[in-house]
Amino acid sequence: MTTLAYLGPKGTYSEQAALDHAPAARRVPYPSISAAIRAAERGEATEAVVPIENSLEGAVTSTADLLIHETDLKIKRELVLPVRHCLVLPPASGADAGAGTESPPVEVVHSHPQAMAQCRGYLERRFPGAALEASSSTAAAVEDMMRSKRNAVAISSRRAAELCGARIAAVGIEDAPNNRTRFVVLAPSDADPTGRDKTSICFDFDHDGPGTLHRALGELASRGINMLKIESRPDKRSHGRYFFVVDMEGHRKDPVVRDALAGIAGQAAAFKVLGSYPTSS
Amino acid sequence: MTTLAYLGPKGTYSEQAALDHAPAARRVPYPSISAAIRAAERGEATEAVVPIENSLEGAVTSTADLLIHETDLKIKRELVLPVRHCLVLPPASGADAGAGTESPPVEVVHSHPQAMAQCRGYLERRFPGAALEASSSTAAAVEDMMRSKRNAVAISSRRAAELCGARIAAVGIEDAPNNRTRFVVLAPSDADPTGRDKTSICFDFDHDGPGTLHRALGELASRGINMLKIESRPDKRSHGRYFFVVDMEGHRKDPVVRDALAGIAGQAAAFKVLGSYPTSS
Repeated sequence: MTTLAYLGPKGTYSEQAALDHAPAARRVPYPSISAAIRAAERGEATEAVVPIENSLEGAVTSTADLLIHETDLKIKRELVLPVRHCLVLPPASGADAGAGTESPPVEVVHSHPQAMAQCRGYLERRFPGAALEASSSTAAAVEDMMRSKRNAVAISSRRAAELCGARIAAVGIEDAPNNRTRFVVLAPSDADPTGRDKTSICFDFDHDGPGTLHRALGELASRGINMLKIESRPDKRSHGRYFFVVDMEGHRKDPVVRDALAGIAGQAAAFKVLGSYPTSS
Repeated sequence: MTTLAYLGPKGTYSEQAALDHAPAARRVPYPSISAAIRAAERGEATEAVVPIENSLEGAVTSTADLLIHETDLKIKRELVLPVRHCLVLPPASGADAGAGTESPPVEVVHSHPQAMAQCRGYLERRFPGAALEASSSTAAAVEDMMRSKRNAVAISSRRAAELCGARIAAVGIEDAPNNRTRFVVLAPSDADPTGRDKTSICFDFDHDGPGTLHRALGELASRGINMLKIESRPDKRSHGRYFFVVDMEGHRKDPVVRDALAGIAGQAAAFKVLGSYPTSS
């Protein structure tokens, strides 16, 4: 049976991504991204599902660094999930944020600090006098609200609210629309070609200087390969140097991509294919 | 008198950066990066000091997005601060994490979830049985510890501990060394040339396709201008498109840089200079 390691606790957006990826799989929460990745490396889990971009639940940058420096697991799938924060109330009595003046004012809002920051405008308009109480995840925020003796609400994912039996009073309360998180599924090997694929690589150079990156990207441009994303990340081992992470269209087994990767590898000091996998939607 | 708006509360690493930038200036904390930036736009503050890379205190990505889309303030200085987390104890009695077996075990650790995540290995070794309690900032964590009725410790910056009169039991307890945060000082105009400068720009293209970025970077490479950093950021307005943020050596008033910027601007759909400023260290 497939076992998925994910960034817990239950009810996080990572668990939702794991559910979307393989609804029938066993899901096991881990306390950190690196713990989830180690579980898949050791074979405790078949695959790890971790956020890689724009997460609300902490250090997503660590996923890229772990892929560059610390694991040989490959990206075999990506999933892009809309992040829609919910205003959540205790199941029965208590705070009733929808009922207007007759209900007592909300005294405290529980959430993860980043979710709180993303809903700041909404909170200032709706609950101007409420105290903001930090929780370690949006899922923990619902539990903190349930235990609170004050008139409390929480901000969480829909799934976290449903798991705890809390009421959802509003959906999509984040100030900026189109908030998405990209998750990746990591496994011992990446995916076979499907005809609509992406490839992620990372590399660095052993000398700086004008034009090194430009020349390397020329291997893609000269072959008509579309670059989808580029990022330079500080090299943890030597200050002032950078690793580049590049996503491109195509599969590493496509002859034209294979040639371009060989060209980049020939110019780079370190070079690694992070995986080829189907393009999400 | 110079007034600096920073991401509060008092005791954050952002306040430390503001102190390093202008020790004699008045410092005013704001509850979010965008609130600090708006204060400098409205003239409530002379300058805003905000994290732009690798912060421990939340949504740093928002700084880049605000610079791209929402403010005309310019980067006039950068500061790179080492992030060194401290293990902090209440001033007198209470938890004594250094005293060994005769002291009662630590029951609870207070901190911001991201600082907690960065010290996870240390916490697992030192306080395996302790509960982890989230706070909205590392500075708030010290106050939460001081108010706690249990045997509590906190993880915070040195400054937050000192401001509250707490004891510092250990410095540099983060699992990964060389943890740095880059801050920028934003003001209505950027800095004059010093001879050792950087320039940050952002741009996008109105058509995708192989080679668009490669051609634009050719404007730098062909002139021998060293690129220091590159990042593609999802365009908030149209899904699947990207803004590129590039840091390069040199000042926008240097003739060779000015020509390169004109070349990139001529190829881009949108183009903006985020500022020229002295290179840190």
